[in-house]
Amino acid sequence: MSEKAVIGFIGIGVMGRSMAGHLLAAGHEVHAYTRTKEKAQSLLDQGAVWQDSPGAVAAQADVTITIVGFPRDVEAVYLGEGGILDRARSGSTVIDMTTSSPDLAVTIYQAAKAKGIASIDAPVSGGDIGAREARLSIMVGGDVDAFERIKPIFEIMGKNIVLQGGAGSGQHTKMSNQVAIASGMMAICEAMAYAKKSGLDPETVLKSIESGAAGSWSLSNLAPRILKGDYAPGFFVKHFLKDMGIAIESAERMKLELPGLALAKKLYEKLAAEGGENDGTQALFRLYEKQL
Amino acid sequence: MSEKAVIGFIGIGVMGRSMAGHLLAAGHEVHAYTRTKEKAQSLLDQGAVWQDSPGAVAAQADVTITIVGFPRDVEAVYLGEGGILDRARSGSTVIDMTTSSPDLAVTIYQAAKAKGIASIDAPVSGGDIGAREARLSIMVGGDVDAFERIKPIFEIMGKNIVLQGGAGSGQHTKMSNQVAIASGMMAICEAMAYAKKSGLDPETVLKSIESGAAGSWSLSNLAPRILKGDYAPGFFVKHFLKDMGIAIESAERMKLELPGLALAKKLYEKLAAEGGENDGTQALFRLYEKQL
Repeated sequence: MSEKAVIGFIGIGVMGRSMAGHLLAAGHEVHAYTRTKEKAQSLLDQGAVWQDSPGAVAAQADVTITIVGFPRDVEAVYLGEGGILDRARSGSTVIDMTTSSPDLAVTIYQAAKAKGIASIDAPVSGGDIGAREARLSIMVGGDVDAFERIKPIFEIMGKNIVLQGGAGSGQHTKMSNQVAIASGMMAICEAMAYAKKSGLDPETVLKSIESGAAGSWSLSNLAPRILKGDYAPGFFVKHFLKDMGIAIESAERMKLELPGLALAKKLYEKLAAEGGENDGTQALFRLYEKQL
Repeated sequence: MSEKAVIGFIGIGVMGRSMAGHLLAAGHEVHAYTRTKEKAQSLLDQGAVWQDSPGAVAAQADVTITIVGFPRDVEAVYLGEGGILDRARSGSTVIDMTTSSPDLAVTIYQAAKAKGIASIDAPVSGGDIGAREARLSIMVGGDVDAFERIKPIFEIMGKNIVLQGGAGSGQHTKMSNQVAIASGMMAICEAMAYAKKSGLDPETVLKSIESGAAGSWSLSNLAPRILKGDYAPGFFVKHFLKDMGIAIESAERMKLELPGLALAKKLYEKLAAEGGENDGTQALFRLYEKQL
């Protein structure tokens, strides 16, 4: 895949726009579809070709990339009638970069395989900034040969690209990531709440604790936003809730109890019920703020 | 305090031995007491002077440092009959570096002040390695002038030395630190449990997630030990339980609910009840391991 390929791109949101833009800039031919066409306009201005449906995109492409909303959206674009797997060419590759269900990734992999199509799950972390700067961490599940073939395309969009195992492994890795973030957000919110409530200056507290055993990406990057009352997303509460839902469902199916995750999800549900679903994940602090 | 001082040191455990050793090496005269005299032997060999009680140490010292076990031990050595505050000289300074109760720190500060003694609370983080390498983070509560006077002594033992506010503020800062660590430990244990249970190679998962938003000191330093089945302390479960107990008591007194901390403490109590109290804190993973 070092020669120029025809790449289909489905889902032109904040992430997809940057990612597809990098593919265009690298000289690939990009065919695009997204539910709301206006969202694709800047990409079309850069030279992407509009198609009227996911299936129409896949019919053109050597490689079809999707990054859509929920697992039900993934299911619809891949498995729906006239969808990607109905129309993608045998010998082509499909890559779902949505954070989605590991089980669904396996289902799509098997359905694709039956039609001679290689399927890869490859969710990302790094957010809108990582997408813009082509520094995403890409967690990949699928067959080794398909991964090796597709890797140059990943390298246009990300920096830390790791094949984690067979189909579904990318999604499971992303779930591990979200599980770590979930309790980690309680950790930093509770530490900041304790500091404030006890009359300390939390910014001075950060000077003492952020470089030691309590240190984390969230403490260094999100606690300062919390202390400024800046709850703008970064990463939306509603999307994090989706991810935690997938993780808990998946853990339940594996008969694995994760009490920290369960508690974090409960707290985030409370936050969403109180109107916080369009805030950034650091807004979990709102629940503690009320006690200060 | 740049001239050589007579320093009293009470509590020669793993931390105290290194810390007092640095003070000796810097040319200070050190008078020492610890409950079990043999533990002080290597320090006496380096030139420290043995005294038979905490009070006898304090009677000799310009600055008396304590780092003992539990708040009840702190209370006994400072406020007990014939203890530090009974025998320390007016104009001298006492520094408690035990992780202990913020309220007790205030009580000692006031009792000391009434006798013309300056009192500082200054718990540390960085563990045995930080103590050995004189790279402790020292979180200080007390009066500014006492802090400035005593700072050169802290600089012999630590690197990140921050005055957090008045009496008790060092302890409150340490509590914020422990609160962050508590849920943070659930975060990394649950992420690793999820990774293992889903059939991934957790070491490969770390390659994808440790440099991103899920990253933390614990994930980089303790998860690899967990994956090797290495539960040796670092930091003892029994000591962490003590700290979480102080934090929860203090939070309750302030009417602050910290559900993540409460859950972590419950899990660590379970671990201790199952015989894990002399393991390192990363042994929290044992509770999840049973499900794998």
